[in-house]
Amino acid sequence: MSEEKAEVISSPAGRTILASTIAKPFAEEIAAQVEGLGFKPKLVGFLSNADPAARMYANWTGKTCEGLGFEYELVEVEKNELESAIIKANKKDDVHGIMVYFPVFGDNQDQYLQQLISVDKDVEGLNFMYYHNLYHNVRFLDPPFNEQKCILPCTPLALVKILEYLGVYNKLLHYGNRLYGKKIMVVNRSEIVGRPLAALLANDGATVYSVDINGIQHFSRGDDLSEKRHKVEDLDSSVTVKDLAPHCDVIITGVPSDAYKFPIEYVRNGTVVLNFSSSKNFSDEIKQKASLYVPSIGKVTIAMLLRNLLRLIRNKRIAESRRNSED
Amino acid sequence: MSEEKAEVISSPAGRTILASTIAKPFAEEIAAQVEGLGFKPKLVGFLSNADPAARMYANWTGKTCEGLGFEYELVEVEKNELESAIIKANKKDDVHGIMVYFPVFGDNQDQYLQQLISVDKDVEGLNFMYYHNLYHNVRFLDPPFNEQKCILPCTPLALVKILEYLGVYNKLLHYGNRLYGKKIMVVNRSEIVGRPLAALLANDGATVYSVDINGIQHFSRGDDLSEKRHKVEDLDSSVTVKDLAPHCDVIITGVPSDAYKFPIEYVRNGTVVLNFSSSKNFSDEIKQKASLYVPSIGKVTIAMLLRNLLRLIRNKRIAESRRNSED
Repeated sequence: MSEEKAEVISSPAGRTILASTIAKPFAEEIAAQVEGLGFKPKLVGFLSNADPAARMYANWTGKTCEGLGFEYELVEVEKNELESAIIKANKKDDVHGIMVYFPVFGDNQDQYLQQLISVDKDVEGLNFMYYHNLYHNVRFLDPPFNEQKCILPCTPLALVKILEYLGVYNKLLHYGNRLYGKKIMVVNRSEIVGRPLAALLANDGATVYSVDINGIQHFSRGDDLSEKRHKVEDLDSSVTVKDLAPHCDVIITGVPSDAYKFPIEYVRNGTVVLNFSSSKNFSDEIKQKASLYVPSIGKVTIAMLLRNLLRLIRNKRIAESRRNSED
Repeated sequence: MSEEKAEVISSPAGRTILASTIAKPFAEEIAAQVEGLGFKPKLVGFLSNADPAARMYANWTGKTCEGLGFEYELVEVEKNELESAIIKANKKDDVHGIMVYFPVFGDNQDQYLQQLISVDKDVEGLNFMYYHNLYHNVRFLDPPFNEQKCILPCTPLALVKILEYLGVYNKLLHYGNRLYGKKIMVVNRSEIVGRPLAALLANDGATVYSVDINGIQHFSRGDDLSEKRHKVEDLDSSVTVKDLAPHCDVIITGVPSDAYKFPIEYVRNGTVVLNFSSSKNFSDEIKQKASLYVPSIGKVTIAMLLRNLLRLIRNKRIAESRRNSED
């Protein structure tokens, strides 16, 4: 055995892939599209909490926007005034996209605020309608024309795009079936990310184990085709992460706690590992086991958010030109 | 002093008013309207939890429905199948109203399910649109015609109707101003009841102290008339229930815990006291202090739910006849 070969084997067999690397081609595509628009699209971000992480994310959104040709306005507003501020932004013609840095109230009132953002400006895709369409595999807003594509919630969308980049989606399989045969664990079942993500992956053919503190659910494509809907089953409580994780091709975590670490000993060598929490859900040892490890996804999420903004502008133009041709 | 007078003074000066008493005139009005319809309206209730309280409430809804001329169907469905079941009921022409016995999942997925019920069949008024209209004092669904009245969420509506019955709303004042001068404490700020209730009362002119574990908020009518919206201010954390309760004309509680009791010593003699929690938030001593005490409101809530159902049917007829006259 040559020296060179020995060296390769002693280093980890896998690779760590940074979100910035994955975001790059999207950013280039977005910048080119903005240039083609002929005007600077404007995104407004509302900040109503004192969370330094939210402010950092806001600054980061601002920088990305400016780098890619968007206008970005950060509006700081007292939380009890946020509802009025959103309504005003909904009505402004020069505002093309609106986002809120959650949590604001940290309870169900935040869901109310999410629904308040106009569907035409909802860059994060948080409106009930977008989630509903996601769960039911509805891809277009304007049947039977099918020209206006649905917005997808930006974090689940970012995760799907990352899995495509990593080659987990197999392009030799037919579209809508490209995860066939894959087992994926998703540790998080929030309404914002974990549950819609599990549904998206199941709709693309994967077997998904959706884990949260209440137990493990099994998402599959199911057979209720009348509703175009994935199937969800509760697993028996005797089945644990320890039993399932070693069989998974992909493990995705999103536990918002610095104290939580996914048990590395349950991860099989060669697993694809993604973390979308702002906390580090894996210790560095994971690099010795994962084939591909994506430690954070924020930059891809921002790219998806701006991609959604461009889609909203395109959808609006399609709707307007259709109205004009009908007149 | 005669013996009779002494007896009157030694018994509590106030009265306990039962929900059944308050519900009675509404029930009669509803029964008469159903008879006028010429068909039996159908309400479907979905039960997906094993909570005996939910089953009791379901049975009670069923009995009330039958007594007033409605058809009631209780559908028991596994929680992971509930979404499909709701979508099917949304599409059925012979189903006029739909309700779900929450909690189902006990987390934000329940909010998703609430939004799934068709706005045309949402007897509990849980859709975002109805809450939005409530917060913004929007009374009609069909401007500029203003014939189709908005549905109001049924528990806040029940509480308003109870306050009207009790004479807290003063009919000598102009409509929309009938709580002017009243101070009302609401102990609960849930998105379903407490927050919309506080907004309704503030929009009618009251000063409202909205209490929850995160602190006390002050709701007033405010001056942002452009948004037709009440104003909300956080009170300084040094201000407590102890400071405010003695100044309140009305205290309304909805704390879902058997362990919680509102401190009787903070209640001024002659206060109007309502409890909408299924737990008893006041010990019996309250009868010695309250002028009017309503220990539970379930029967009024069910009446409001059936009233909403009739309104949904009326709104649909108005929409249809308008469509026909336009053809």
